[in-house]
Formats: sequence, C-alpha cells, structure tokens
Amino acid sequence: MTAVLPPDLRVLNLGIPTFLPGLAAAGSPATRTDWSPPARGDARVGWAAARLTADAGVDAANAAAFGRIISSHPVLTGTALARTLVPALKDRRLLHAGPPLEWDRASGPVRGALVGAVLLEGWARDASAAEAALAAGDVPFEPCHHHGAVGPMAGVISPSMPLWIVEDPATGRRAFSNYNEGLGKVLRFGAHSADVLERLEWMRAVLFPVLQAALESLGGLELRPLMGRALQMGDELHNRNAAATGLLTRTLGPALARAGGDVVRVFEFLGANDHFFLNLSMAACKLACDAARGVQGSTVCTAMARNGTDFGVQLSGLDGVWFTAPAPVVEGLFFAGYGAKDAAPDLGDSAITETAGLGGMSLAAAPAIVRFVGGTSAAALETTRRMASVCVGEHPEFSIPGLDFRGVPVGIDARRVVDLNRAPVINTGIAHRLAGVGQIGAGITAAPLACFEQAVAAVAERRWGAGL
Amino acid sequence: MTAVLPPDLRVLNLGIPTFLPGLAAAGSPATRTDWSPPARGDARVGWAAARLTADAGVDAANAAAFGRIISSHPVLTGTALARTLVPALKDRRLLHAGPPLEWDRASGPVRGALVGAVLLEGWARDASAAEAALAAGDVPFEPCHHHGAVGPMAGVISPSMPLWIVEDPATGRRAFSNYNEGLGKVLRFGAHSADVLERLEWMRAVLFPVLQAALESLGGLELRPLMGRALQMGDELHNRNAAATGLLTRTLGPALARAGGDVVRVFEFLGANDHFFLNLSMAACKLACDAARGVQGSTVCTAMARNGTDFGVQLSGLDGVWFTAPAPVVEGLFFAGYGAKDAAPDLGDSAITETAGLGGMSLAAAPAIVRFVGGTSAAALETTRRMASVCVGEHPEFSIPGLDFRGVPVGIDARRVVDLNRAPVINTGIAHRLAGVGQIGAGITAAPLACFEQAVAAVAERRWGAGL
Repeated sequence: MTAVLPPDLRVLNLGIPTFLPGLAAAGSPATRTDWSPPARGDARVGWAAARLTADAGVDAANAAAFGRIISSHPVLTGTALARTLVPALKDRRLLHAGPPLEWDRASGPVRGALVGAVLLEGWARDASAAEAALAAGDVPFEPCHHHGAVGPMAGVISPSMPLWIVEDPATGRRAFSNYNEGLGKVLRFGAHSADVLERLEWMRAVLFPVLQAALESLGGLELRPLMGRALQMGDELHNRNAAATGLLTRTLGPALARAGGDVVRVFEFLGANDHFFLNLSMAACKLACDAARGVQGSTVCTAMARNGTDFGVQLSGLDGVWFTAPAPVVEGLFFAGYGAKDAAPDLGDSAITETAGLGGMSLAAAPAIVRFVGGTSAAALETTRRMASVCVGEHPEFSIPGLDFRGVPVGIDARRVVDLNRAPVINTGIAHRLAGVGQIGAGITAAPLACFEQAVAAVAERRWGAGL
Repeated sequence: MTAVLPPDLRVLNLGIPTFLPGLAAAGSPATRTDWSPPARGDARVGWAAARLTADAGVDAANAAAFGRIISSHPVLTGTALARTLVPALKDRRLLHAGPPLEWDRASGPVRGALVGAVLLEGWARDASAAEAALAAGDVPFEPCHHHGAVGPMAGVISPSMPLWIVEDPATGRRAFSNYNEGLGKVLRFGAHSADVLERLEWMRAVLFPVLQAALESLGGLELRPLMGRALQMGDELHNRNAAATGLLTRTLGPALARAGGDVVRVFEFLGANDHFFLNLSMAACKLACDAARGVQGSTVCTAMARNGTDFGVQLSGLDGVWFTAPAPVVEGLFFAGYGAKDAAPDLGDSAITETAGLGGMSLAAAPAIVRFVGGTSAAALETTRRMASVCVGEHPEFSIPGLDFRGVPVGIDARRVVDLNRAPVINTGIAHRLAGVGQIGAGITAAPLACFEQAVAAVAERRWGAGL
C-alpha cells in the first residue's frame, strides 16, 4: 500500500509505530515520538494523573519533598548490634526486605535467608526445625522499612547482626543497614550453609568490634562527599560500589590500623568485596527518602522495595501505605549453568538507591553496567535522561560526568511515571528462586507501573474523594 | 560580496575557514574539514612524512613497536633505595626530568628541586652553597630517562630516595620511579623548605620500610589489571589517580596492616594523597615504552619528557636521540593569587603516560579533568578520538567506558602527528617559575610539533640519506 502524499508533508508519529513503514515507502519522513496513552489506557487513572499534574498544590508538595531529599546529610556515626538499635528486635523476631509478607507467599531466597537467620540466632537446631518455626509464626518477621532499616536482596536482619548507623546531624534522624557479606553464596541471596553462617559469625565477632573502634576514633564519617566522588568514578552506588569502597577504605584506613583486633583479616575482607559500600549507600538513601515522608499531597516516591514476591511503592503524601504488584523478572546475565528459569523475581530494599536518584536512575554514571548486559554507553546516558523526565529535579552535589555534570535525577514523581508509562529503572542482583542456593546473576529491571497507578489513584481519591 | 551560486552546489572546505561566511551568505552550505598543510607548510618535512607514510616497512616497524607496548605486563615487585638500583647514583649525582640540561638553562622548579635534593643528601649546608655546588658542576645531574627511571615535574631523584621497582616478568626489564609526595609545596614542584625535606626524610625512614615489608609479604602486584580498572573509574592515570590509589590501598591494605612500623601514619598518607598512584603509573608506562625502543625504521614515539626549559621527544627507530623544542606554556587553572605569568613552562617525565596512551590521550576516560579547565565531556571524548587518529592502534585491555569501551590510543606515530599537525595532548600540573615556591595550578597542554618535525626529518634522512 503506497499512497501519493504531498511533497512537503512532515509527519509527527505519536505512539504506535505501525504507520512509519508506509510513510517511509511513500517518501515522507516521519519523526517518531515515544508516546502511549497515560496509565496504559486506564481512563480513570490517566485522568487522576492529569488532574494531579495540573494541581499547583501537588507541585509545591513535591518541591518540598524533593528539597528534603537533597538536603539530607548522612553521616556514618557508628555501628551497633541490631537488638540495641531496633526495639522490635529485643524479642525473637526478624526483619526482611520489601513490603509485608506471609511465609506461605515468601519467595525461596527470603525463606532461605529467614531460615539462616533463625539458625544464626540458635533458635532452631536445623533448617527444617527453623522452617517449621517460621511457618508456625513462632518467629515473626516484618519489613526492615517499618523499623528504620534497609537490607539488600532478602534483607534479613536478626538481633545479633551488627548494623551501620547513618545519621543526619541537622535532624537527628537515623537509618540502619547490615554489613555487606560479599558476592556469591551469602545469606542475602538465600544461602544458609555452614560457611555462610560462619562468615556472619565472623562479621559479628571480629569485623564488628574493629569497625566500632575505628568509627569511634574517627568520630563520624560524612557520606555525602564520598558518594559524590564515587559518582565521578563509575559507581552508581547500587550495583557498582568499587570506587566508594576504595574511598571508604582509604578514609577508614588509619582508624582501622589503630583499632587493634584482626585488622589484617578486616583489610582482606574490604579488599576482596567491591560491594562493601552498598549497604552504606542504602542507609544514606533511606535517610534521605525518610526525610521526605509525610508531605501532604506529594506524589514523590519515598520507597521502592521488593521481597521476591511483591514489589512495593510508597509515596510521601500517603506515608506508610504500600502499593504493591507482582515483583518482575530481572533481565540480566547469569552465572554459568543458570538461566532465567532459575531466577527469583526482583528482590531487596536496595531499590531505595533508585528512590533517592542513584542506581538505575543514574545509569549514565556507570556505563560499565550497561555493557555488562550488552548495552552501549549512549544507552546509559539515554536511560538517565529518560529518568530525569519523571523526576522533580536534579541533585545539587551528586553529578554525572558523562552528562556534563548534570545532577542525578531526584524525586520520582508518580504522576509523571503514570502519565508517560515510564517506570523507574533498577539495577540489581539476581537470586536463585530456591532457598539455600544464592546469587546466580545480575541485571536491569523496572518497577511495575501498576504500583504507581494504584498510588496515583489513591492520592487523587484522598484529594478529591471518590468523585475524582 | 555575495555571489550567485548553482542551487545544488555542495562545498567541502579544507583548512582555512575564510570562505565559509561568503558561502553561507550566498546560501550554499559548506562542510568544513580540519586540514592544514602538513608539517605546518615545511615542504621538506611534509614530504618526509608523506614518503614515510607510503612506506610499508615503516608500517611494519610501527606495528612491532605498538605490539611491544601493549604486550608489556608491569608488576610492582618491590622498592629499594635509588643508590642500590641506579649505578650512577652510587656517586654524588642527581637525576632530573626531561632531556639533558645545564644549570645555566635550568628552569626555576628544576633548580629548586636540585637544591632540595643536595640539602636532603647533606651535600651542602644551605641553599646558596647547594646552588654554588650545582652551578660549579660539583654535583652532576642527568636525565632520569637515561637511567631507566622517570620522575614527575622536576623529577629529581637522589641516592637516598626510595624508588618503586616495576618489572616485566616475561623480559626481566625494569623501570623505576620515586614515591609521590602529595600536592602543594613539594620537591617535585621546586620547593625545598624544611617541611618539604622533612616529608622526604619521613618517606625514606618510615614509609619506605613499611612499603618494602608489605611488598615482600605480597610477593608482587600486577599493575595492568589495576590500571585497567582505574580507567573504568574516571582516572586517566596522569592527572587523576584517585581510583587507582583506592584500588592500590585496598590491595596493599592487608600487607600494610601486617608490616609493622608506623602503619597508621602510612594509611593517613595514602588516604590524603589522591596522586599516590601516579608514580607507579609512570613507571609502568616507562616499562611499556622502553620495550618499544630500537625497532629499526619505526616512527613510534617512545618518550616525551620536559624539564621546564626543553620539551624532548624520542622515537623507537632512533633510540636515545632527543628531538627538542622550547617547553610550551600550560593552559590551566591557577590556585588563588597565581596566574599564567607566574608559571614555569611544561615540566616532568609524567608525559610518559601520554606516550603509552594514557593521560591527555585518554582524556575521554576522565571528563572531570576537562571540566576543571572549563570544557565539556563531549570535548573530552573528541580529544581522545582525535588522538586515536595519530596512533597505531588501541590497547586490548585498557578501555574507555564513555567511548563504548574502545581501547586507549597507543603508539603515537610521528608521521601522522606531522602530517595532520596534530600534537599529542598532555594533562599536567603547573609549577611556579621561581625555585622554592611549588605548585600553582594544573591544566592541559600539547607537545610541540617542532619535536616531531625534526624527528620525522631525521628518520627519513636515516632511511634515504640527505637526498630524501
């Protein structure tokens, strides 16, 4: 089918590209625009997004939430055992990643990590006894996010685990995360064999007192300048933390050397784990996002978290409410012998880094990650430009060299996500779907649009009632 | 003046852009190409470059030289005092950066550093006695490059200074460099006050034995993978070494903690000096470029070095011959209170990093440097693409994320530099022109084309006699 078209016809093609080949065949150039109906065609939610977009009150609320995120100044002030920091962990209880979850619906890696934590605490004599206790509700488990904490992947925190304390001196607000175990067969990917538990025990008995003494002698370490420098060095502070780990080692070096204890082994651990800084990045991002909670009317996202079953999103204006959808599959590269069929769905509180503008949102800072999944550095730049289009603004100090030092995109605005059908991009690790196996790959995924659609509808309903 | 031009005229403008405004006014688009007469219009040298370019024998020689550079595997095997490594330093003698130099022609920073080294060695009781001894020839000084060594800026090495030993296990070839003192008021920028000499004394008495013990227990550290990783992290390994210094600290950490001595102070020194890795980068590059020396007929550059008076270039095919021109002024940013009028001309052996394809040649790896002098990340990418046009090939392991992991450009081909009038770009520090002051800025410069023109004429003459 070739039509005769006026010679000076210029076509702008919105959305579906079906018309493009015909136009090209007829000799008429068309410019394509990446448009699709808002809210994936759901008229009610699309209208909610449009009405919220036209509302200057929401703009003001979002500007306030954005301002609180970028004004956060995380300082690593110390480290302590979880039971001394999180009141709920004085009892026999565990924390896990993502929104709330029951045992029956829990993913393999979360089950595996919960079992491992029960064994670590000595609450059961073997794995099947631990499973039985968890299934019977004898060991309750709750989201890290409900207790000021974040944990990567399964994100399981138990009372005797040491946590990082990250604090904003201006507000006194605090956020916690556990220590990073390294890659491979580790608790956070659902493994709980003897070597996994031995490493966790070593972290509590040896690493913890050395870090505690070092941080005491250092008297607090400002994370914001360190993170800013790492972003100039190829880290996006979610799936790449090599530069930040190097900067942390150089900064802590003298204090570690002064600390006493098995410092040699501590330096070996830091030297061998490129992800050691990840959990500090997460705690710093949790601190920043928590500061933005509870701004009335704001559609800025304050948490994205997954538990391998559900993906949950929270908005500033509806503090504490989870909007959930099934956790997506991660597109990635797998370790030899594994493939997509072995993978657990998306998992972990680590998407708090994206919520604060890092990770996949700042893919342009870390082109090495795109290459890992077969992409180009141009695609990495484009991803961050696209993410900027759904955010309130740019961070004044966290900047990206490859984008001529534009700030990282901060303040994911659910209105724009829904209006453009443009889901936040997330970099992440991939766990085996079965308990006890561990990590099998890493890759890139996106938050489910459904979470943002529900959230936008709920904000609109809160604002204008059911009559929307 | 507006001419009437045929409507379908398409113009390619070579070189001088004078015609462009007229063509634009007449409505005829012109494409500009960055061309100028080879050898800046010197017909004899331009012809020499053209004839060498047409010579397959030179291509083969250059491919061989290139192959030797990229096959170099530098391993940091140890550290020792200069007098035990460099036979010439058993006597009362000093080494300095760049091509050979007499006291009368020496720049302020080189004089200052030579004076400081004489004082450090205890060969004179004060600065004026040291100057007199140097001027009288009582303390001879020779280029580092003549003794298998390289030194940044003034590049002064004295017998009691500790040197890094970098070695290629496959060939047994070695290269040396001194330790980096940090920024500001330091010997290599020409300062020689008491604090400068105390730091050097501390480096010999405290830092040296700790590093020596650490390297002994480590048994050798491969620099090639470490440098490759640092290039993924925003370092170009000349003016940015922050990532490499972090990777080095993490790798050496356990061995340093094991070493005994004042390890706390050593970690402090490493933590405070982002340039600590520079001298290792230089030694590794010296090792690679030395491997390419002496390939008959090759026009590949094996050394670029400056002493604040002269800029010197050596080619593989005319091993040991310096082709010199006045050292250029560096365009850069100055510390508060200083400006271009205070600056010494270009200085240091550190351009060995550019000779091996790093530094300014790989500006695309470190957009933060272009920003420092007011440029854009696009300009950084373009600089490396331009530099690739005067090089034999790309490094198989050293790659640049922002250029989709193209290898760094390696094997500066003097034929192409002359044919295109395209001088190698160099990142560098700026020293005060007077002895004793120190660093006053940093910036970007280019090698003088005159060095390459002389070198090309000399290779052609060697090949075809004076009848060229």
